Amino acid sequence: MAYPQNCFAQTTIRDYSLLGRRRHAAASNTLRYQLDVLKKTGRYDAFKLHWHPSYNDPPTVWPIPNHLFWDSDIAKWIEGAAMFLKQQPDQEIEEAIVDLVDMIKSAQQPDGYINIHFTVVGPGRRFTNLRDFHELYNAGHLIEAALAHENTFHDRRLLDPMLKYVDLLCDTFGGGRNQIPGYPGHPEIELALLRLYDHTKNTKHLELANFFLIERGNAHGWFGRHYYDVEAERRGDDPNKRPAFYPERRCLWYHQAHEPIAEQQTVEGHAVRAMYLLTAATDLKRVMPDSVGQKFESAIYRLWDNMVSRKMYITGGIGAIKQWEGFGLDYFLPQGTDEGGCYSETCAAIGVMMFAERLLQIKLDGRFADTMELCLYNAVLTSMSDDGRRFTYVNQLASSDQDPSKREEWFTCACCPPNVLRLLAQIGGYLWTHKIDEAEASAEVAVHLYTSATLKFAVGDTEVQLEQQSNWPWNGDIKFNLKTTLSKLRLRLRIPGWAKSFQISDGCPDLDVNDGYVEIPTAWLASNKTFSLSIPLIPRLIAPHPFTNQHTLSLARGPIVYCVEDIDNPWVEDHFKSTQISQDCKIEERPMQEKTSGDSLVGLTITDGASIIGANSRNNSPSMSLGSCYKSEPIRELHFIPYYHRSNRGGSGQMRVGLRREAPPVGCQT
Amino acid sequence: MAYPQNCFAQTTIRDYSLLGRRRHAAASNTLRYQLDVLKKTGRYDAFKLHWHPSYNDPPTVWPIPNHLFWDSDIAKWIEGAAMFLKQQPDQEIEEAIVDLVDMIKSAQQPDGYINIHFTVVGPGRRFTNLRDFHELYNAGHLIEAALAHENTFHDRRLLDPMLKYVDLLCDTFGGGRNQIPGYPGHPEIELALLRLYDHTKNTKHLELANFFLIERGNAHGWFGRHYYDVEAERRGDDPNKRPAFYPERRCLWYHQAHEPIAEQQTVEGHAVRAMYLLTAATDLKRVMPDSVGQKFESAIYRLWDNMVSRKMYITGGIGAIKQWEGFGLDYFLPQGTDEGGCYSETCAAIGVMMFAERLLQIKLDGRFADTMELCLYNAVLTSMSDDGRRFTYVNQLASSDQDPSKREEWFTCACCPPNVLRLLAQIGGYLWTHKIDEAEASAEVAVHLYTSATLKFAVGDTEVQLEQQSNWPWNGDIKFNLKTTLSKLRLRLRIPGWAKSFQISDGCPDLDVNDGYVEIPTAWLASNKTFSLSIPLIPRLIAPHPFTNQHTLSLARGPIVYCVEDIDNPWVEDHFKSTQISQDCKIEERPMQEKTSGDSLVGLTITDGASIIGANSRNNSPSMSLGSCYKSEPIRELHFIPYYHRSNRGGSGQMRVGLRREAPPVGCQT
Repeated sequence: MAYPQNCFAQTTIRDYSLLGRRRHAAASNTLRYQLDVLKKTGRYDAFKLHWHPSYNDPPTVWPIPNHLFWDSDIAKWIEGAAMFLKQQPDQEIEEAIVDLVDMIKSAQQPDGYINIHFTVVGPGRRFTNLRDFHELYNAGHLIEAALAHENTFHDRRLLDPMLKYVDLLCDTFGGGRNQIPGYPGHPEIELALLRLYDHTKNTKHLELANFFLIERGNAHGWFGRHYYDVEAERRGDDPNKRPAFYPERRCLWYHQAHEPIAEQQTVEGHAVRAMYLLTAATDLKRVMPDSVGQKFESAIYRLWDNMVSRKMYITGGIGAIKQWEGFGLDYFLPQGTDEGGCYSETCAAIGVMMFAERLLQIKLDGRFADTMELCLYNAVLTSMSDDGRRFTYVNQLASSDQDPSKREEWFTCACCPPNVLRLLAQIGGYLWTHKIDEAEASAEVAVHLYTSATLKFAVGDTEVQLEQQSNWPWNGDIKFNLKTTLSKLRLRLRIPGWAKSFQISDGCPDLDVNDGYVEIPTAWLASNKTFSLSIPLIPRLIAPHPFTNQHTLSLARGPIVYCVEDIDNPWVEDHFKSTQISQDCKIEERPMQEKTSGDSLVGLTITDGASIIGANSRNNSPSMSLGSCYKSEPIRELHFIPYYHRSNRGGSGQMRVGLRREAPPVGCQT
Repeated sequence: MAYPQNCFAQTTIRDYSLLGRRRHAAASNTLRYQLDVLKKTGRYDAFKLHWHPSYNDPPTVWPIPNHLFWDSDIAKWIEGAAMFLKQQPDQEIEEAIVDLVDMIKSAQQPDGYINIHFTVVGPGRRFTNLRDFHELYNAGHLIEAALAHENTFHDRRLLDPMLKYVDLLCDTFGGGRNQIPGYPGHPEIELALLRLYDHTKNTKHLELANFFLIERGNAHGWFGRHYYDVEAERRGDDPNKRPAFYPERRCLWYHQAHEPIAEQQTVEGHAVRAMYLLTAATDLKRVMPDSVGQKFESAIYRLWDNMVSRKMYITGGIGAIKQWEGFGLDYFLPQGTDEGGCYSETCAAIGVMMFAERLLQIKLDGRFADTMELCLYNAVLTSMSDDGRRFTYVNQLASSDQDPSKREEWFTCACCPPNVLRLLAQIGGYLWTHKIDEAEASAEVAVHLYTSATLKFAVGDTEVQLEQQSNWPWNGDIKFNLKTTLSKLRLRLRIPGWAKSFQISDGCPDLDVNDGYVEIPTAWLASNKTFSLSIPLIPRLIAPHPFTNQHTLSLARGPIVYCVEDIDNPWVEDHFKSTQISQDCKIEERPMQEKTSGDSLVGLTITDGASIIGANSRNNSPSMSLGSCYKSEPIRELHFIPYYHRSNRGGSGQMRVGLRREAPPVGCQT
């Protein structure tokens, strides 16, 4: 069974598509830019295990040393770089990979252990704080890097050391006597081990992933108590000493360790951790559908539904709460810092895509792909500038004076930038899923995402080549061109949930949409290898669930969610807080050609139905009585751009996705 | 200048008025009920300074010992009891007061110190944690108790020991060498010292209050650093050990100590602390208008306006955040726990009344009295059951499964119940303000609140008696009857901000409303000593500020804010989350006669314009597109009761003040 991280290379994406242009920016700018930063910040040489002056810095987020994730920053860059190199060679980048791999190898301890912090800064404290110290998280990313490295270069210079490390982990962790019955506070290694098992077929690797997932949240896992309680006690932790990100003492839900995965009713805690964990749980369900998988099945769907319907922003972003970088209560989704919080971390949105992709492997359902596409084009793409040199970590839906909408060069905790890099490197693996049955000489292809790309694979000696050509997401017409002699090919195309209609080339029999996909009749396909799918992309108004108490309207077109920025609407002074739009507003499309990036895209403009309410003035009472009205001034033209495109063209960083919905007037401020 | 705590006894309130009935419940039930609880819980005997088993209990809210406020619980009960006894004798209560006063006296240390915790549990740690340990807060309440005791019994059995304690405090705290330049984390003693100074005229008392207020928030107060930083360092506090109520390390704004009072731009932190502090600051401005007062003047009005217009619930409650029992960001005012939080502590609302009352002394402005009355009839009265035996600490505007709307018998931290007791005891002092000029043989009376009551005072030998008779807040007709031979009497009556109109007995010349008050012309008054004021009480719809993103409507009538309860609307299942009302709804008045309490009051019923939206059903996307609609089922009759009356008649504890405002449909859940 294919992982996008393996099969991405079977897809070629055209450079002129939006995805192609972002991939191009990543390959030509981001790779080098991030390599430079890794060198400047000391990360690049860290596996030499010398002391770096910054190791003395007090933690920005107590008690986490600022360098604690350096292993994973390197690993994710190697992973992304290796994937890009598989698609186009790059001498300089390849040399850096060789260099880094040698350093990692040289950093391995005699017993196989590999970790910068616990070798240089905290020797002897190895595996004493699985809860907070990202040791196994780093190991997971190094495993993923090793798999990518092996996949590109077909050599085992990184994989072998990692296999030795994994042997140590398999000996160290588990239910056996003399083993530690623990699991990582930040999941990641679980999904890495499952991918490793897919490559090695070594059941040890499957069993360790299985143990980590099943044991998690066990209230009686160690000496009859919760593993994290005993671990903390052994460290001599004072229970009143709380990591900065704990809203309360013994905050087990922060790590999704408050109860076993199978029993969790709502998605809680740190959003990235939750997504990596559920990605692994879903993959385990696929690998072991009957035994362990069955335990997880209902939880996986239940937690997905809870997240998408009650804890997700309309951009696909997740996580309203800054303190624990994670989920708030159901329907608690304020748009910005000054409205109660909005976090929507980039890595969390990437995690949603990973979770959705694994779900599509066990159940082909368009609702998973709809959300995957929503995250990709909005919550994820918004995190990198057009030129691939600036990034966001947090992706709020509305700016404020404290938190203007802007991108940074880098972060102390730099998980997001290399995560976007590796996602773009492997994005080809997310476009479609193909399954091959050699015995039957048959194949299935399900197309999840539209762009301009070609998928190539073989069934036995028979080549299959499927091309899709479009200017998605700006234009909804997609040309398909199938080249193969294979007779038994099952082709399914996703019809997005937001599509009001769709059409397939003349002559194609009427098709029903099942779980968000239409199946092209094999017989018709045989004689119509070139055909088209048309999905009208019409600007539409969308709103969050009423229980979010947002009462806002936003503009969307196809998978793209729009926002307003001060650069297009320079009159704004209050981050569009008092800007309102009517549900009957008139929306015009506005083709845009970006000078700097050369991108062409579709902006939107409200030419009638936008106004400003005069609600800023002083009020001597906590309430206002109904009847009289606000001053309301019409806005001649309110210009919108795609949310992902924000903060690329200067301006003062005023931005908003959800605009107040105009309603009959309440209260008098005139 | 009069304090309500002194002049309340010049006012007699009729038993049949709403305020009279609540006072009656307090005098006949609450006094005894609370006395029993004080005995049962060990508080009553605590000043005997024996060890109580509960002193071993782990803190409910670390690091605060559960018994830390026992001194103040006793003190507030004594204060309230003494005030009630001044108005009607009660043998049993008086004996308890005598007994308690003897115990407090006997608990005084040779140097004058009085404190239960630091004498019995933490000897030697005296004055080492002003920030968190309520030592001076307890002292402040004991001072207030002593003043009430002296005022009622005209003996100094409690006042003398307290004066000795205050001498110790005056020696201990201040800017002099060998003095501690500290101030209490929980303000209270400042306002108590100002009242003490008004009684003793001993400038030492004024100077200590002055020091506490001016020094607060000084970044360089002790050895060039913030007092609380040095204090914490001397205790050997680990900065990563955070009290449960600190959202972050070094959380100075929690105590309003992040900057000097005069420089504070917004009202922040713990709501009760903020109100007690600003009450004292306002009173200092009155006592020393030119020197220190001037420093505070703009801050006092700025913080009041910020609070009332951006951080106050429509019930007058303040404090959205449970963790620090205080203020959130501007306009962050969710109605209930499951919508992001609502705290609205009873003591905080009482604090708003105290702050408003002091403001009225320096500036007669109806907006202060409007908010004072709003708090009294809604945020404060709601905290005690009709029979005076059940209480609330938190007063959220909407219930949830986790936090149903119900009252408790008592609390571990029991600040609120005795605070309501003493407020009701002295409420006569809030109805009106009178100023006397013996030299000019003239007087001024400003009537702030309407009920049925009589005010008696003398100018020289000339008696002045002003009676107001009404069934307020149910009926807006108030009869006034002035009995005096005094010719120079200036009488002003408040016209509430919500009043659409008002009328004074025929023949009275047309009057302008200035800052919320009309002045009855002295000449006309002389020949019309009996006259009436009529303020129509018409049910109205009110809404919070649009920036709160609540988009709700509530019913109000006069000063009363209404809510819906499941007992009157038994079909409810979701705490009225999906109940919506239209701005065009039809509202009928519904006279109610309560069997148990005998109260008669005015309920409201929406007979047309209430419905239920079907927004509970599952949704596979984080957004919904505009166009199609929710299922919406009309509600034949939606019954409302005054918010203060909630949770008196059984039911399942489902309650809501702000109901979703019906709007053109968004999204399809049918």
